[in-house]
Amino acid sequence: MDTNEFRKQGYEFIDWLAGYFENIENLPVKPSVSPGDIKRLIPGSPPLEGESMDEIFRDFREKIMPGITHWQHPGWMAYFPANNSPASVLAELLTAGLGAQCMIWQTSPAAAELEEIVMEWLRQMIGLPETFTGVIQDTASTATLCALLSAREKKTGFDSNRKGLTQKLRVYGTSETHSSIEKGVKIAGIGKENLHLVETLQDFSMNAEALRKAIEADLDAGFTPCCVVATLGSTSSMAMDHVAEIASVCIAHGIWLHVDAAFAGTAAVVPELRGFMDGVEMADSFVFNPHKWMMTNFDCSAYYVKDTAALLQTFSIHPEYLKTDADMQVRNYRDWGIQLGRRFRALKLWFVIRSYGVEGIRAMVREHVRIAKQLSQLMEADCRFEILAPVSLSLVCFRFNPGNLDEGQLDLLNRKLLERINASGEVFLTHTSLNGKYTIRVAIGSRTTTEKHVQRAWEIIRSRAAELVHLVN
Amino acid sequence: MDTNEFRKQGYEFIDWLAGYFENIENLPVKPSVSPGDIKRLIPGSPPLEGESMDEIFRDFREKIMPGITHWQHPGWMAYFPANNSPASVLAELLTAGLGAQCMIWQTSPAAAELEEIVMEWLRQMIGLPETFTGVIQDTASTATLCALLSAREKKTGFDSNRKGLTQKLRVYGTSETHSSIEKGVKIAGIGKENLHLVETLQDFSMNAEALRKAIEADLDAGFTPCCVVATLGSTSSMAMDHVAEIASVCIAHGIWLHVDAAFAGTAAVVPELRGFMDGVEMADSFVFNPHKWMMTNFDCSAYYVKDTAALLQTFSIHPEYLKTDADMQVRNYRDWGIQLGRRFRALKLWFVIRSYGVEGIRAMVREHVRIAKQLSQLMEADCRFEILAPVSLSLVCFRFNPGNLDEGQLDLLNRKLLERINASGEVFLTHTSLNGKYTIRVAIGSRTTTEKHVQRAWEIIRSRAAELVHLVN
Repeated sequence: MDTNEFRKQGYEFIDWLAGYFENIENLPVKPSVSPGDIKRLIPGSPPLEGESMDEIFRDFREKIMPGITHWQHPGWMAYFPANNSPASVLAELLTAGLGAQCMIWQTSPAAAELEEIVMEWLRQMIGLPETFTGVIQDTASTATLCALLSAREKKTGFDSNRKGLTQKLRVYGTSETHSSIEKGVKIAGIGKENLHLVETLQDFSMNAEALRKAIEADLDAGFTPCCVVATLGSTSSMAMDHVAEIASVCIAHGIWLHVDAAFAGTAAVVPELRGFMDGVEMADSFVFNPHKWMMTNFDCSAYYVKDTAALLQTFSIHPEYLKTDADMQVRNYRDWGIQLGRRFRALKLWFVIRSYGVEGIRAMVREHVRIAKQLSQLMEADCRFEILAPVSLSLVCFRFNPGNLDEGQLDLLNRKLLERINASGEVFLTHTSLNGKYTIRVAIGSRTTTEKHVQRAWEIIRSRAAELVHLVN
Repeated sequence: MDTNEFRKQGYEFIDWLAGYFENIENLPVKPSVSPGDIKRLIPGSPPLEGESMDEIFRDFREKIMPGITHWQHPGWMAYFPANNSPASVLAELLTAGLGAQCMIWQTSPAAAELEEIVMEWLRQMIGLPETFTGVIQDTASTATLCALLSAREKKTGFDSNRKGLTQKLRVYGTSETHSSIEKGVKIAGIGKENLHLVETLQDFSMNAEALRKAIEADLDAGFTPCCVVATLGSTSSMAMDHVAEIASVCIAHGIWLHVDAAFAGTAAVVPELRGFMDGVEMADSFVFNPHKWMMTNFDCSAYYVKDTAALLQTFSIHPEYLKTDADMQVRNYRDWGIQLGRRFRALKLWFVIRSYGVEGIRAMVREHVRIAKQLSQLMEADCRFEILAPVSLSLVCFRFNPGNLDEGQLDLLNRKLLERINASGEVFLTHTSLNGKYTIRVAIGSRTTTEKHVQRAWEIIRSRAAELVHLVN
């Protein structure tokens, strides 16, 4: 494809995307395909000779698009969102076109320095103190793994890196802690049995007193407490751990405190919502994902750490073929995480923050929190619905409970209700389990989601629930 | 930014990129900036109010571009390339626009199924047997970490995941093994001291007999040999380990054999170059990076594994909020690696393979190998230049040796030579160390690099060398 052909096709792709953004609301959020449906449409072997872009693009529209779940749909209220924005998409186009691999300063000085700047911008935006330094990771899974490994190394005097893990380390979370912590604990060689799930309070937050007791019991039993993962905005219920209380316990015992605010972190940009961050200044590391609620394309996770020396000592490698004269004066981000290779991710963050401004991001978050509150009030006013967790930020957890059903029947009823809601195609919700109860989640945070869409979601929820009651009776 | 504005800006971005591709040859490959130069141009705090895209794009061109190292430049002969292509860039535009997060089948069925298909295409293309199953990882660093962890778990009966690492495991590589193996061994809790660097032969390949002896000595000493990493195309010299011999040793002792062919793997698409793959069918896992030599944007690493059950048992997590009805019938790629979140990377691979066809990829690789050979012949014919490693595929390792200098002086001379070559702006080379000698590498593999560019590189190398001799004398 020469550059003229690239120009021609590029215009077409841009047109198609613009049309996609305009019409996305009319598409079903989740496609109605069965396993294997897409696979059957694609040949089992690659073509020997090249094909035209017209043909490839047509196949994309006809064979791939019908199997796509539309994460940017205003009816996306599933899991957590991963919202993008036109500014972010344009930046990604440049990132792809430059095709730079930003492992060290020399392999793209502007990328390395822009990363330093935008991470500093974000730090100011969410009100983290200057003692924190940021680096972009791909996902919170990776960032949390970096925290666990730094904690492991600091606690073992960097001996695990040298000699291998020998001590019995312990890590602490709760039942509400994200699954990536369990995964990270396994990867780091610490073992799932050494991830202690501290009991939670009524609001699903960590019981700091129980944490203190668990640590003391572990010390008595000869274990080495190493890291506590506090969660701000848990996946199931947006529970907020009380970081200040937890931090006191950690400081008293010299334990690394990592704060996982993957989704909720963006809300800290709004001054009046920032209360949940209390105590974060006492933590050792903090992660949140601009790729969730800050209109920046997945993947883009912001990891902040106080002890950068410990991070670097955990991950540094010095092969001859990567040495440069600038090494002492610059940040070589290859030593700030797992992967050697790195995309130019800072660019999209820069585009998004400048395009919307801090106030633009605040306005979106405020509106999402307002309409989530509105939905929860509508639900509370309808006695057939139960709110199953305190409504925190923009997540509403509920079940339909028309009365006269036992817990097993309620689980089944709500499972059916969720299926029916999603079959509408207008909205996509997912479930979790809270106190053993099947729980439907409404996670508001897609850039395009407005009051109208939440009102429509409520209509669908109520009407599908009514149908089910009719069927049951 | 509304969709009309997105359209308008999108056209401009496409035009600018087309112009960039057309003029890239006239830019210096590496920018002449000093640490801090870019940072000084960007405000230290984010804007409160949004700015126009015209303004942001202008700043990108004026402040960021002058600090960019041009990985797609035809004079890029540094490190290994990370080449892209117009087809790949267009696919990345769609990936960004859809903004899908492909952690499980339900969150984008088409992405999951297309990944299955294109990984099967690639498997056929490089001649891996059907016993291998593929998954896309971001980088070879991550893929190799997956291999090390699967090996660790299989060897310890999945007890390290459960209880934490207790055995003294051993991993084997050579001095030429990539730095990501050392990093992976540390992350996995095995410890750098347990990475045994087996001695190499004259051609920098692993001495299989020395490997056998090292394993036996470790067994006698009470260690548990766990994984061998063989390299096809080492970073320093493109050395090829003899996988068949190494595999026999591994099979005899029940040790996981991982093959790292990050750059060279693409050459296996060319039947007459495929000889280096002999024995790969006996390995347990294999990785190569389409993002290096296969015109597919970074990041896109192809990881193949035989025992998918071991991979899945190593990484599976089952939180309630991620369970779906389709789980038993589909591949949920979240369980095939480190990260939960995943970009729709299969799309660009599909676009590239279809756009160029298998023959198109073969033609590019053949030409790169031919012009590298040509360069090495020119060097061999000039007695002032020494080739420091057998020329393998498209990498030429050399030093300038005008005679009458000791090793220390030669190192210094070649360090200066490299500086002068790179100061030309027309070509970008990097260095390594081979047998303790400062070595300049010419790594050919950028999509746009042709005979003309390699001839020009040779002119620059010779003329800068002549200048230095003049200065020395």
